[in-house]
Amino acid sequence: MALNRIVVLIGGVGGAKLGLGLARILPAESLTFIVNTGDDMTYYGLRICPDIDTLLYTLSGRVDPINGWGVAGDTRQMLETLRSYGEMPWFGLGDKDIATHLLRTSMLNQGKRLTEVIAYLAQGMGVAPRVLPMADEPVPTMIETLEEGTLAFQEYFVKHRWQPTVKMIRHGNAEHATLSPEVAQAIAEADAIIIAPSNPWLSIAPILAVPSMREALLARDVPRVAVTPIVKGMAIKGPTAKIMTELGLEVTAESVAAYYGPLLTGFISDAQDIFLDLKGLRSAAFDTMMPDEARKIALARELLEWLEGQ
Amino acid sequence: MALNRIVVLIGGVGGAKLGLGLARILPAESLTFIVNTGDDMTYYGLRICPDIDTLLYTLSGRVDPINGWGVAGDTRQMLETLRSYGEMPWFGLGDKDIATHLLRTSMLNQGKRLTEVIAYLAQGMGVAPRVLPMADEPVPTMIETLEEGTLAFQEYFVKHRWQPTVKMIRHGNAEHATLSPEVAQAIAEADAIIIAPSNPWLSIAPILAVPSMREALLARDVPRVAVTPIVKGMAIKGPTAKIMTELGLEVTAESVAAYYGPLLTGFISDAQDIFLDLKGLRSAAFDTMMPDEARKIALARELLEWLEGQ
Repeated sequence: MALNRIVVLIGGVGGAKLGLGLARILPAESLTFIVNTGDDMTYYGLRICPDIDTLLYTLSGRVDPINGWGVAGDTRQMLETLRSYGEMPWFGLGDKDIATHLLRTSMLNQGKRLTEVIAYLAQGMGVAPRVLPMADEPVPTMIETLEEGTLAFQEYFVKHRWQPTVKMIRHGNAEHATLSPEVAQAIAEADAIIIAPSNPWLSIAPILAVPSMREALLARDVPRVAVTPIVKGMAIKGPTAKIMTELGLEVTAESVAAYYGPLLTGFISDAQDIFLDLKGLRSAAFDTMMPDEARKIALARELLEWLEGQ
Repeated sequence: MALNRIVVLIGGVGGAKLGLGLARILPAESLTFIVNTGDDMTYYGLRICPDIDTLLYTLSGRVDPINGWGVAGDTRQMLETLRSYGEMPWFGLGDKDIATHLLRTSMLNQGKRLTEVIAYLAQGMGVAPRVLPMADEPVPTMIETLEEGTLAFQEYFVKHRWQPTVKMIRHGNAEHATLSPEVAQAIAEADAIIIAPSNPWLSIAPILAVPSMREALLARDVPRVAVTPIVKGMAIKGPTAKIMTELGLEVTAESVAAYYGPLLTGFISDAQDIFLDLKGLRSAAFDTMMPDEARKIALARELLEWLEGQ
């Protein structure tokens, strides 16, 4: 089948690798990202959307190639000045990065929807595929931890370097969020839905917590395929494996597939993993490691060809 | 008489020169600045107080020694990034400078009064004399111009480089401003009141437009002395002389003294000006040029000695 409209549910650094690969080979009008905003926070009055910014910086070529987030060649003059005033900032804010946050914050304060603001930022950065926040309303991910009580996501992730033990993950304000017209339309028109190899619990679950999101996805009789973030019992990066253990799950690709459940019609595992039992899902195994742009494009191409063959 | 409490009404760069001189020789607890906030604006969501910041940067030694405003060694990464997004910022925002604006904006958004915020920033910068905004409420200076209609102050001053012809100056929202407890107390306790050599119409008039300010000053039976911003028919810097001409005034120190009227009991003119008719004011003539720190201190010392002699 022809793939004219691909929708990708996606988080930050890990997912953005596949996002870049897809953006390199698909026409821009064929590609829509629905991005986790559960990580968002307001810091010194700035509205920060880490996953959206990571994707925009990655797709625009601005991203810091070492970290995979933030802007290449960024400086920390603002942050160092705050420190000189006696403040103790714990979240990294590069001077170039601040331009994104300032523009976003001032547009939101003027009453623009986040979806409109991100479209404006994407255009400003020359990003052609559509980048949609999962919702216009804030749905802050709250992490209930054993040692530190309930933490806002960035407190857990950055301030505490994802060391506290996760007991439960909640999606604050989710009941007041709505499917934006843009997200609803993108899903309604999709020929295939891809879940990027992002953290299912931290990056994809918030997207699925938006009311009607899951139903809108399930209503589409098109391939709905996840790419595994787990390879041979390990996460490529970040706390996925640690969290799975803390939630009492086996750290396997099967656990990820089981977590997504009926949402999936297919699953892409890593070629290094063998003897996976993916319970009736259409599946394929590719090299899902994407250390460089060539491998990002290669995985995107294999995935798209496999989808077209269905 | 002994001068235990000096209050200085002050604007930006020009006034800050004398401000620094006074701060160098007076004990911190003896010195309170009441600063013009008519120039303030919100830009990309940041609350900017140019005159207060110029004074804080000057007193803390952070100021850019070339411009006399902004932070020494500042960079423009944020601003250049905004430009790369297609924005056309017309107001200079250095990366270090942004720390001041961000901290101020987020504290104001948390409900703090501007007076409290400035006290916190002053402490953070190690500025010991008291720096008080003229009011907690915004009183934006609006410039009615011949060529461009009504302009917000920074639009007039920065965007249009004070080139339009000034017809009238208004103080927006002045009727809703109040004398803060800190300003009221400082005036009530002052042994002398100094009007810095700032622009009378752009920098001092907004302070005097705060309801009850003029009355509070007039109620004090202490020396109330202005230092001339006009020397031999010229302003040391900025648009003072230009505006005086546009308002139909002679560009003389006498015009300045007449503008302040009964507010003054004394006037300091420049030693280069002779034959001034200062109509019953106590007066003295000093070298009011302050090109370097030694001259700033020298003028402050002469002024204080003259006041003590009264």
